[in-house]
Amino acid sequence: MRTLASGRREGLQPEGPERRLKEPGIELPASPTPSGSYVEAVQTGNLLFLSGMLPVVNPKPKYLGRLGKEFDDEAGRDAAYTLTLGALAAAKEHFGSLNRVIRVIRHGVLIATSGDFFDQPKVADGASDLLRDVFGIEKMSARSVIGVASLPLGAPIELEVVFEVET
Amino acid sequence: MRTLASGRREGLQPEGPERRLKEPGIELPASPTPSGSYVEAVQTGNLLFLSGMLPVVNPKPKYLGRLGKEFDDEAGRDAAYTLTLGALAAAKEHFGSLNRVIRVIRHGVLIATSGDFFDQPKVADGASDLLRDVFGIEKMSARSVIGVASLPLGAPIELEVVFEVET
Amino acid sequence: MRTLASGRREGLQPEGPERRLKEPGIELPASPTPSGSYVEAVQTGNLLFLSGMLPVVNPKPKYLGRLGKEFDDEAGRDAAYTLTLGALAAAKEHFGSLNRVIRVIRHGVLIATSGDFFDQPKVADGASDLLRDVFGIEKMSARSVIGVASLPLGAPIELEVVFEVET
Repeated sequence: MRTLASGRREGLQPEGPERRLKEPGIELPASPTPSGSYVEAVQTGNLLFLSGMLPVVNPKPKYLGRLGKEFDDEAGRDAAYTLTLGALAAAKEHFGSLNRVIRVIRHGVLIATSGDFFDQPKVADGASDLLRDVFGIEKMSARSVIGVASLPLGAPIELEVVFEVET
Repeated sequence: MRTLASGRREGLQPEGPERRLKEPGIELPASPTPSGSYVEAVQTGNLLFLSGMLPVVNPKPKYLGRLGKEFDDEAGRDAAYTLTLGALAAAKEHFGSLNRVIRVIRHGVLIATSGDFFDQPKVADGASDLLRDVFGIEKMSARSVIGVASLPLGAPIELEVVFEVET
Repeated sequence: MRTLASGRREGLQPEGPERRLKEPGIELPASPTPSGSYVEAVQTGNLLFLSGMLPVVNPKPKYLGRLGKEFDDEAGRDAAYTLTLGALAAAKEHFGSLNRVIRVIRHGVLIATSGDFFDQPKVADGASDLLRDVFGIEKMSARSVIGVASLPLGAPIELEVVFEVET
């Protein structure tokens, strides 16, 4: 039985994040790897800060372009969903199990746009909806959404996440 | 007498944030409401993170445009002041009273601009000056000011705030 | 002997940040001074938040322009290095000694670019490499890198830093 076999770290909570990922059959990608003098995750006390996540399927960017130009809202939502899976993978690599995450405190969605694209919130929902589904609707996060000039490697979206975690 | 009637939560401090708002007759707007899978404020320990605040008078954006184009510095300062009132309303909704806020730790002012507008600090002062007036000159905050390509709904300014609060 | 004379605050650790700065002969500039209603550093618990740092040699901006236009990668790295020295100076002014800093939790590198510049990570390494050299490769930080439309005063780069510190 999975719930018994998985033990404490994998979580016995019937509604834990690991179960919420597994039941719809979501597979996490490999955790992203840093491309400079930084690490993907740093914990201080009960806070875990992730580095800015890009929608890469290592080691290549999966998406290149800007919202309102090469990407429409739907493609943008898909990119946001993809990079959020990468953020979850980075947190899981740090902890061993996402069940040690209590909630997301804040997520920032940075969207490369031309100056006349204003549907950033719809695109950001690709990230926010997945975080809500994994960590629970009663523990939704604060969010900032910003349209930026450009992102590393030509990515259309970048995600910043701060988690509250067990200590 | 207001100071007695208001009780502990409203604050007996003669110089508390609630009094500093009321004496000049500042009225807070309704707290903003989320337009996606997020909440306006999340507390962890003694920190309260707000979502990115936009200068809306619910449910409509009050301002549309960019600094250096549709907005001059003075209009930008006014927008920054307006959205800071919304941020204070969001914090007050979370706590019941702004007197439970010890200080602002950090505020980020994101300003939609063309690439050749460099007066962001003057515009940001519309937010920073109000925070100083409410929380006290001896407790000023760290600040970041950034010019961005575009903001949700076409807003000219967005504000991020982290508060230190009583636990 | 310097290690004895410098006492506890200056740090007896043979590998402390102060020594790592001094041995290659790095001189910190004067700490930057705020140009509005904010302060350069705010501590809450074991976290120190800096204001957004610009590459100024007080009181004038040392660099003006954007990456991919007036600046190439190498000049951008130099600007990133310069403003990181300013950030270290601000932290040192707050604490008296950088040896009280345990690590950098997060740094954000904001780079003014045209929309078609994608080498932000190389430029950001000018900041990240210095932080790694000062605080140690075993304590590297989380990082976000973003291309923005414009920065205050026309600066090409801005740096945000959150430190974990002794309490």
